[in-house]
Amino acid sequence: MNLIEKKLSGNLKFKGKIIEVHHDDILLPNGEMSMREVVKHPGGVCIAAINENGEFLLVEQFRYTFDEVLLEFAAGKLEINENPIDAANRELIEETGYEAIELTSMGLLYPSPGYLGEIIHLYYAPKTKFVGQKLDFHEFLNVKTYTLDQLIDLVMKDELRDAKTIALIMKISQLNP
Amino acid sequence: MNLIEKKLSGNLKFKGKIIEVHHDDILLPNGEMSMREVVKHPGGVCIAAINENGEFLLVEQFRYTFDEVLLEFAAGKLEINENPIDAANRELIEETGYEAIELTSMGLLYPSPGYLGEIIHLYYAPKTKFVGQKLDFHEFLNVKTYTLDQLIDLVMKDELRDAKTIALIMKISQLNP
Repeated sequence: MNLIEKKLSGNLKFKGKIIEVHHDDILLPNGEMSMREVVKHPGGVCIAAINENGEFLLVEQFRYTFDEVLLEFAAGKLEINENPIDAANRELIEETGYEAIELTSMGLLYPSPGYLGEIIHLYYAPKTKFVGQKLDFHEFLNVKTYTLDQLIDLVMKDELRDAKTIALIMKISQLNP
Repeated sequence: MNLIEKKLSGNLKFKGKIIEVHHDDILLPNGEMSMREVVKHPGGVCIAAINENGEFLLVEQFRYTFDEVLLEFAAGKLEINENPIDAANRELIEETGYEAIELTSMGLLYPSPGYLGEIIHLYYAPKTKFVGQKLDFHEFLNVKTYTLDQLIDLVMKDELRDAKTIALIMKISQLNP
């Protein structure tokens, strides 16, 4: 089956602090017209880092959208024109206080490709050194450490639900089977 | 560290076809005021189903946001007041033509909890029977079959980037180590 949709025109409907919403007129594969609601986002990074004791560094953070404290790997949005590797190094230090000595790309993640343009760049930092946390003025979080087996267990018990963190746990567990 | 943020007032800024954007005034843990941009979404389901040959059913679909054909497990949005299990059964038949004989909950996924309220209900259908595809009027996709090892390989090669599909592959690979 031919699957390709073609853009006819784009219409910015909302510009927020982080996201933009567009309503684009498109041509479906069967030649009919339709509309796609697209959420644009600057993209982000997520870093699975290991400390001097061989444990993974997680951040415990209140997520207002779910009214819940969630456990996630260090992560953050890309700043304007920022290289993803620079963002990963920056966010890891800011949130955990650890600097990556090695930083390996673990590919890209599309959190919700049906309507959301966000791309998360995944990284693995198997070696780090402590240099001190540099939290943003309005950032509140606790750093926690876990083994890979403990993290897999939390995912399987449905106690860790963050997509980027699960994707990195999956990929790293395949590197270290 | 105290992490809790309190809602002071909510303001609907944009209402689209699928999502709503809210700008809520909040109280930070340190007592200062701030604003959270929140994207609300009805939520969805994703189903990892196995056919009569023991292979996983994937759908190949054009994703306009990335201008790419992506490989994903069957999935879809919740309809108004729809039970997630009903949505999972409905979407699996519509997209793949297979009906679940068994359907196991594999927990919840938060695709991007920093600003996005979407929750994806994950399911595993290890036994199915073919009853015939019922695609929506404006839905175009190809059904493909893969083994679990092939899917893990695609994730590791960065050729499968959809968060809900990766989360289900990870969880099912832990059930069948």
